[in-house]
Amino acid sequence: MLSVEELERLRALFQPEAVAVIGASSTMDKLGYNLVDSLVYGGFPGRILPIHPNGGEILGLKVYPSLEDAGIVPDLVVIGLNQFATVEMVERCGRLGVKGVICIAGGYREMGQEGEELESRLVAAANRYGMKMVGPNTLGLVNTYHDFNATFYPFRLNRGNISLISQSGGVGLEIVLRAQDEGLGISKWIGLGNAGNLGFAELLQYLAQDDSTKVIALFLEGTPEARRFVEVAGQVAQRKPIVVLKVGDSQTTRYAALTHTGSMTGSYQMWRDILEQFGLVVVESTQELVALCKAFVLAATPKGAGVGILTHTAGPSILALDELARRECLVPPLAPATLEKAREVLGENPPVVLKNPLDAAGGAYLPERYGLLVRAILEDPGVDLLITIYCLHKNWHFPSAEIVEAKRLYGKPIVACYISTLGAVREDREQLQGAGIPVYTSPREAAWAAAALVQRFQQENILERSHNAEQGS
Amino acid sequence: MLSVEELERLRALFQPEAVAVIGASSTMDKLGYNLVDSLVYGGFPGRILPIHPNGGEILGLKVYPSLEDAGIVPDLVVIGLNQFATVEMVERCGRLGVKGVICIAGGYREMGQEGEELESRLVAAANRYGMKMVGPNTLGLVNTYHDFNATFYPFRLNRGNISLISQSGGVGLEIVLRAQDEGLGISKWIGLGNAGNLGFAELLQYLAQDDSTKVIALFLEGTPEARRFVEVAGQVAQRKPIVVLKVGDSQTTRYAALTHTGSMTGSYQMWRDILEQFGLVVVESTQELVALCKAFVLAATPKGAGVGILTHTAGPSILALDELARRECLVPPLAPATLEKAREVLGENPPVVLKNPLDAAGGAYLPERYGLLVRAILEDPGVDLLITIYCLHKNWHFPSAEIVEAKRLYGKPIVACYISTLGAVREDREQLQGAGIPVYTSPREAAWAAAALVQRFQQENILERSHNAEQGS
Repeated sequence: MLSVEELERLRALFQPEAVAVIGASSTMDKLGYNLVDSLVYGGFPGRILPIHPNGGEILGLKVYPSLEDAGIVPDLVVIGLNQFATVEMVERCGRLGVKGVICIAGGYREMGQEGEELESRLVAAANRYGMKMVGPNTLGLVNTYHDFNATFYPFRLNRGNISLISQSGGVGLEIVLRAQDEGLGISKWIGLGNAGNLGFAELLQYLAQDDSTKVIALFLEGTPEARRFVEVAGQVAQRKPIVVLKVGDSQTTRYAALTHTGSMTGSYQMWRDILEQFGLVVVESTQELVALCKAFVLAATPKGAGVGILTHTAGPSILALDELARRECLVPPLAPATLEKAREVLGENPPVVLKNPLDAAGGAYLPERYGLLVRAILEDPGVDLLITIYCLHKNWHFPSAEIVEAKRLYGKPIVACYISTLGAVREDREQLQGAGIPVYTSPREAAWAAAALVQRFQQENILERSHNAEQGS
Repeated sequence: MLSVEELERLRALFQPEAVAVIGASSTMDKLGYNLVDSLVYGGFPGRILPIHPNGGEILGLKVYPSLEDAGIVPDLVVIGLNQFATVEMVERCGRLGVKGVICIAGGYREMGQEGEELESRLVAAANRYGMKMVGPNTLGLVNTYHDFNATFYPFRLNRGNISLISQSGGVGLEIVLRAQDEGLGISKWIGLGNAGNLGFAELLQYLAQDDSTKVIALFLEGTPEARRFVEVAGQVAQRKPIVVLKVGDSQTTRYAALTHTGSMTGSYQMWRDILEQFGLVVVESTQELVALCKAFVLAATPKGAGVGILTHTAGPSILALDELARRECLVPPLAPATLEKAREVLGENPPVVLKNPLDAAGGAYLPERYGLLVRAILEDPGVDLLITIYCLHKNWHFPSAEIVEAKRLYGKPIVACYISTLGAVREDREQLQGAGIPVYTSPREAAWAAAALVQRFQQENILERSHNAEQGS
């Protein structure tokens, strides 16, 4: 747990009242312009203090010749200088009483011995004055709940309940763009960079106590504080799901990561095993990462492990089954009473074999009938979570109202797979996701989501039983 | 190879002049309405003959009480009746001299022994009159180059050079929607269904000689004619790339496939090994299938196996490296002359380690500089294909013109990764894809594409050498 004092310092990073940008520039293609633009375009409500020896104006803001000229001491300073000048500037910030710094420049540990020495000086300077530092070698930091974008990528992200710690700006960008495209929102996004004096462990503890964070996503190359990281992450994962994308499968990749953030990636399989032992969810791609974050942030954990599938087209349900089987996920037979209800909906001799997955073919094109089948399966005592598959069609419409109503009636989690495109499914997706039903456009993603929710149930179940056992003894 | 007569019969399926729809309906949610609507909405230029005992009108078209009343014998009849009535109707079509039929209904082999007998009667009827049959148990057939949509999913697909044979309508729909969303077009799409008398082998031979088909995509559950299939596919794959998505990883899935199209999926790993031995490209997801089709349809095969990577953000290049390494793809060191040129662009002491992948960080934000680096790497004799990574940004723009120009100058294939969304990247994607450069929004897809192109080079190289050796002997 973080002390009150530590939390206070981190608050200076995530919710500053005044922010200075060192190296501010009025040239649009310069980093120093975009750092200022991000704050302005992102709608930062506090004071923005661009700093540059030449003074002048940027985006309507007065530029101060130096930090000392700004009249006030900002809580946070974003430093857009080169790696050498950054070290001096951190020292100056410390002397002035600044609480936190974001150091954008690379050129440190990842460059070999000389860079390592430079980074030691940088970290020592920050530590000397008790300043928390994001970076060096980072894209920066975002807190949508403070309208605060301290990166050099000016954008506005929707608010939401996913927080992301990423060891790469580019991969972080891919993740948040994909999340937005899927109708999700972000709470915090931290570009970890070289993690000078602020690493995964402390940030995870911060996000654990952050009410607007429901799910934590990590992009991980490697970390020198591996033991502390997994211990803290393991504790946090009991409260909030943590989804991890780890790179470093190959020798080549290991060298690339070393020269990126100076990280030793280590053996991938070993990492994966350890992370899973500690209750983290390990994924293979940004697509899977976003799919699982969507599931965790929207859907409730099921109360059992049985997955039902309803479809009007068999192929996608078979793709889903393949993924569920790979994840050792149970697709139990439906109860005789359920099949009886299906027969009532579909007529006496439907041209399909009634089973789980239930492929109702032409019998389920109409949303009303589809809805009746959803209810029939949700009523089955062996089904704890339902995947509903339906295809985009010019003359039929997605059974969204019916699915939402069935969920309300039975309270079991539903994962919807609408074979469609992100553009064409937008309105129905808003309706379903607003009702706590994640929507995917491919059966594979829907199966990932279902399997992750079932695994979360199993994990919580084990923890609860071990907790009860301890209480009993 | 197909005989002239066989080709003629298949032409009746793909380019009919007149098409009858049996079971046409004016009720919008009925299959028989949508079969007619697909032809109309798809812009079919030939005659459309809706057939229903009640007569009347559908979508402005006169409905004939029976096929015999239509006045002409259509080349092709689409049958939207139930499984039993379909058998009778095929017999009637044969007697009338119809050349081809599409049988939509399921309820045959996939239902067990009774269904199997019914299917035997159906196939016998078609064969008796020498009619080619798509299905039964199929979504139907599309040929965009004939504005011909004979499915019950009314849509307009863009024309393009990908043809798809799918054992599932739903999965086929997912593939074509995804392809359209990625800026690609379709030539033919065949829903194989139970493959009554028209299977993979014959359809592959048809697509092999079809000029508008450059790449063939398959969604495969299983096939009873496995030996013939792989032999034919192996021959076709020498002329055109064939990309296969195969399901059937688990026991559950095998049962689901059996009750879907009556297919024995067999051991997945065995299938995979065999398909790869015969030169087919096996993928794990619809996403990968579309990514590879895009690469094959747009980019030329490289003249060697060396992959270069240029980026301004390291993380995505590391994700790409991981994928390339998994596919045993070579990312060679850059030549000293190339690094020298990079140094000229980036200045004497860039804060990055110069290597392959070349992460130019801030030095490559400006498209002009990015373009110079693209040229430097393409000039490297060890690089046969280049992956270019660039991130969406409010104030900078994608280096599309520069990448297109560099490709023109050096002639080597380029795969672009623009970290973005399908919506935001549309215009730049059109520009690049129009110039033969596939664009992906994730580094993983870009790496899949690069690896597939390199493997195509290796395959062609082996075939050419063995051909030369045969010529020499």
